[in-house]
Amino acid sequence: MAGTVTLEAIREAAARIQGEVKRTPVMTSRGFNERSGVEAFLKCENLQTSGSFKIRGATNFVRSLTAEQLAKGVVAFSSGNHAQAVATAARKAGAKATVVMPLDAPKAKVEATRDQGATIVQYDRLKDDREAIGRKISEDTGATLIPPYDHPMTVIGQGTCGLELMEEVPDLDAIVVCTGGGGLLSGCATAARGIRSDVRVFGVEPELANDWYLSMQAGKPVAVDPSSTIADGLRTPQPGKVTFPIVQELVEGILLVSEQEIKDTVKYLISRLKIVAEPSGAAAAAAVLYGKLPAGIKRVGITISGGNVDWDLLQKF
Amino acid sequence: MAGTVTLEAIREAAARIQGEVKRTPVMTSRGFNERSGVEAFLKCENLQTSGSFKIRGATNFVRSLTAEQLAKGVVAFSSGNHAQAVATAARKAGAKATVVMPLDAPKAKVEATRDQGATIVQYDRLKDDREAIGRKISEDTGATLIPPYDHPMTVIGQGTCGLELMEEVPDLDAIVVCTGGGGLLSGCATAARGIRSDVRVFGVEPELANDWYLSMQAGKPVAVDPSSTIADGLRTPQPGKVTFPIVQELVEGILLVSEQEIKDTVKYLISRLKIVAEPSGAAAAAAVLYGKLPAGIKRVGITISGGNVDWDLLQKF
Repeated sequence: MAGTVTLEAIREAAARIQGEVKRTPVMTSRGFNERSGVEAFLKCENLQTSGSFKIRGATNFVRSLTAEQLAKGVVAFSSGNHAQAVATAARKAGAKATVVMPLDAPKAKVEATRDQGATIVQYDRLKDDREAIGRKISEDTGATLIPPYDHPMTVIGQGTCGLELMEEVPDLDAIVVCTGGGGLLSGCATAARGIRSDVRVFGVEPELANDWYLSMQAGKPVAVDPSSTIADGLRTPQPGKVTFPIVQELVEGILLVSEQEIKDTVKYLISRLKIVAEPSGAAAAAAVLYGKLPAGIKRVGITISGGNVDWDLLQKF
Repeated sequence: MAGTVTLEAIREAAARIQGEVKRTPVMTSRGFNERSGVEAFLKCENLQTSGSFKIRGATNFVRSLTAEQLAKGVVAFSSGNHAQAVATAARKAGAKATVVMPLDAPKAKVEATRDQGATIVQYDRLKDDREAIGRKISEDTGATLIPPYDHPMTVIGQGTCGLELMEEVPDLDAIVVCTGGGGLLSGCATAARGIRSDVRVFGVEPELANDWYLSMQAGKPVAVDPSSTIADGLRTPQPGKVTFPIVQELVEGILLVSEQEIKDTVKYLISRLKIVAEPSGAAAAAAVLYGKLPAGIKRVGITISGGNVDWDLLQKF
């Protein structure tokens, strides 16, 4: 199950995960269009099973395992959406999941993951190495490690989001996708430009976690400390090894959004579109609302990548 | 354009409003099912154009007018969703709309209505008679008055919501619909039971606005003071003349929900389903979540009737 990230592989993944993953709605809004000056099509992965697009990659990965592999279970490390996604995909496939989460992970996310039947192994974010813990569990039990973004099967699964968007709105000028590790961005870019090579693709990240922006400028992966952004799903320190070359080839540019723009967009989506996006999930919409796209782009597909935000956090916006 | 409320009329309305009104998604949630003990299908009218189902009746009404009538404009009185709906339907049909709103209407709703190009006439809720103001404008200008619920064309339009739900999930055991004036409930009941006479239909209202509950018991419309419920869309003092007999014939019972159950459901839908429902819009879901349905009902269609809630109000939940 090595896999190369191609449109064909993404189409196969779409067939593989059908019925396990929702075909999420694409929303339009006159108010959003008037305010942003573009015609926007919002792909609502916040309404996805497990609350984010991560279920696509996790399901594609799990459904590609052999019966023997499944019997030994899967393991993942994540404090957020990937944890829930792997737990959900494993439960649906009848496999045991172990998820390595930090001791200070949001209680709601720990509970949602446990609620899916996963075993939680907690670690100290300051002292322990979560990757080492994950690898050790994998070595001891034979469980398959499911990487959150830096693996072709994960990227191919996330690409089904872009495939659905292009199927529903074939004549887009551009798609705008948030990027943490780059799984969603590289997958969607492969799908969109595979279908129509003239579609322009943009990544979005917070100004406070601008590793992709710097890496694209430098022509090689550059690391930053992303810990201070509110967009917890985009707090990866640097681009992935699998994802970076794909983004370098297919993505026109990385747009940066401020913390305030992210928060105001979360609020706007709740007030006007009646949907709840987590800060990471609102970043791409923020880039479009706050005019970060080059001029002349009219029809724009935007991923709302997730909706797992704590009520308490919303109260502070 | 008198119109009798029948399944056939609702089917004609569906064709009439197609392209003007969204076919809203039907959401499912494993968490909701586990908590409620039923298999729930949520018809998301909160994601509808203008933020509620009211656009269905308003559009059906406006699109049934002659060119001569349209040229004279339309008028409506409403502090809430019907105002926005009529303003939106009129704008799309190229007709002038005048909306009579109370001086103390939520600023956001007044602005959203004006934003659609409507002329706002404000009145003092304690001194003035809004119906008299609306009728006078109609008499003076020839504008057609569009009633918020108590007219066959309005009811027939709202019925398209039930039609879509039954088309998408044909094998429902029951549908659960909130009721203020009864437009959505009577329309959906006509559609659902017209398609399958064994579908059970339940209305839902707040304990603090239980006019339908009392009216069904009394066998005739009974008035209450509904002003204290948080569900502002359900604050009608008594059932409508057109809607009451339909509900009496087709609806099995009226379920009552507490203020706390409504608020907790709004919070639950935001936290778990990532959708924003206004208190009125969450009432039907609250009835199902809090076990108000008779035992033995398995597959349940639920209308989430609207999402127009102020951010400030949400902060208080």
